[in-house]
Amino acid sequence: MQKSENPIGIFDSGIGGLTVYKALKEILPQERFVYLGDTARLPYGTKSRRTIVRFSLENAEFLLNFNIKSLVVACNTSSSVAIEELRKRYPDLVILGVIEPSARRALEMSPRGKIGVIGTEATIRSEKYQKILREGGAEVHSRACPLFVPLVEEGWIDHPVTRMVAREYLQGWSDRIDTLILGCTHYPVIKKAISLAVGQDKVLVESGQAVGLELKKILKERKLLRSSPSHEDDLFFVTDFLEKFERVSSLFLGRKVKIEERKFSLC
Amino acid sequence: MQKSENPIGIFDSGIGGLTVYKALKEILPQERFVYLGDTARLPYGTKSRRTIVRFSLENAEFLLNFNIKSLVVACNTSSSVAIEELRKRYPDLVILGVIEPSARRALEMSPRGKIGVIGTEATIRSEKYQKILREGGAEVHSRACPLFVPLVEEGWIDHPVTRMVAREYLQGWSDRIDTLILGCTHYPVIKKAISLAVGQDKVLVESGQAVGLELKKILKERKLLRSSPSHEDDLFFVTDFLEKFERVSSLFLGRKVKIEERKFSLC
Repeated sequence: MQKSENPIGIFDSGIGGLTVYKALKEILPQERFVYLGDTARLPYGTKSRRTIVRFSLENAEFLLNFNIKSLVVACNTSSSVAIEELRKRYPDLVILGVIEPSARRALEMSPRGKIGVIGTEATIRSEKYQKILREGGAEVHSRACPLFVPLVEEGWIDHPVTRMVAREYLQGWSDRIDTLILGCTHYPVIKKAISLAVGQDKVLVESGQAVGLELKKILKERKLLRSSPSHEDDLFFVTDFLEKFERVSSLFLGRKVKIEERKFSLC
Repeated sequence: MQKSENPIGIFDSGIGGLTVYKALKEILPQERFVYLGDTARLPYGTKSRRTIVRFSLENAEFLLNFNIKSLVVACNTSSSVAIEELRKRYPDLVILGVIEPSARRALEMSPRGKIGVIGTEATIRSEKYQKILREGGAEVHSRACPLFVPLVEEGWIDHPVTRMVAREYLQGWSDRIDTLILGCTHYPVIKKAISLAVGQDKVLVESGQAVGLELKKILKERKLLRSSPSHEDDLFFVTDFLEKFERVSSLFLGRKVKIEERKFSLC
């Protein structure tokens, strides 16, 4: 039995999902959150479906120790390939990925229904975004952009190489799309280079806000919203801790948070 | 008690270490090899020392199930940060990393002792190469090049972006070094772009051959070389299997090999 005072769990393959956490916290300020970044095994986007499903189930298992009332899969890759397995394993839990809310938001916002989606190899290969967008009547363009994540992690944000890579990946898209889904939590950081490559008149859709609004609606329907603010701190865990995370987290969140390391079994 | 007919174990974070396997097989054609690529958790180079040590010990444990007489750590990152722990844990096993042999070979080959070394963040941060080279009297330049691995994996081998990234990382090195250690198993694949950036007159040192010659010497001293060729096939394992591995392995090896997936516990 879920209780409204229980926290909301969020996992991502790394700390990029903190952008999703930030959006959720703004939309649901009374709620308490527990965040897990699987930094020991990232990235997920280049790995097989089977392995991504296994990692995702283990992450969920860890968060369930905190009696979460709801699980948000902030990672686009996990959302693309593991959400059905998660829902099958935990039928009583409200489980929300980033794909469906972002795709629906793109359909709402797109002026002429010409929508592009970029993400990791696994996300694009899964065809999840493309399917929902096509069912919504859109003309869809998609492309995996595997170098964007390492470029962000290298800190080459406003860098000629990043602009050149974006141009290479998104060549010709300027005339083809009016809306672009940033289908990976890292991409908002290099939004400027992406926007220059596709044309600055395009609508860019990020995951966080779409997911936050949807989660609020669902929790309200199920009477699972907290009636008063939580007085306990949100918790942040990673499976491999690097000093730089606390610095980087303050870039994402505008404040420094305490991040703890947890190891867990992978069998 | 080690027996000469036992196989040699090799591990790497991925399948890049097959370049090391290939060199070992050429130098030690009578021997049998068991290879493990920890593709479910790669890359290692961006992770913490503690986590890399843990992963390395688990990989060794897996290979010991095959009664290996010797362990080659093909991964530069593991060699940099985990080799002492491995030797402490398995004092009776011949354990060879890629760092020491490659550094000694660079010292032998360098015309004027001006040596550069490039690798992952963890390899460069460990200062292992730099220490051996300085003790050998060299003037040392070092730099982490985290984008080279994703560029190789994206297949952008002879690509303007790769040349631009190489120029950015190695700016000014042309006048500073006469020899360059490619301190990561992926780098030989983009040797041309690296060579253009540092000047084509430079000596490039790769890991495989240096390690093979050293291993042969040690096994001979300990009377652990096989006296007749093994008739059993070499074995190749990964922790996450992707279709593309068999195709990529044929690029590395000139032949296709059968690769099996194994999961193992991480506790």
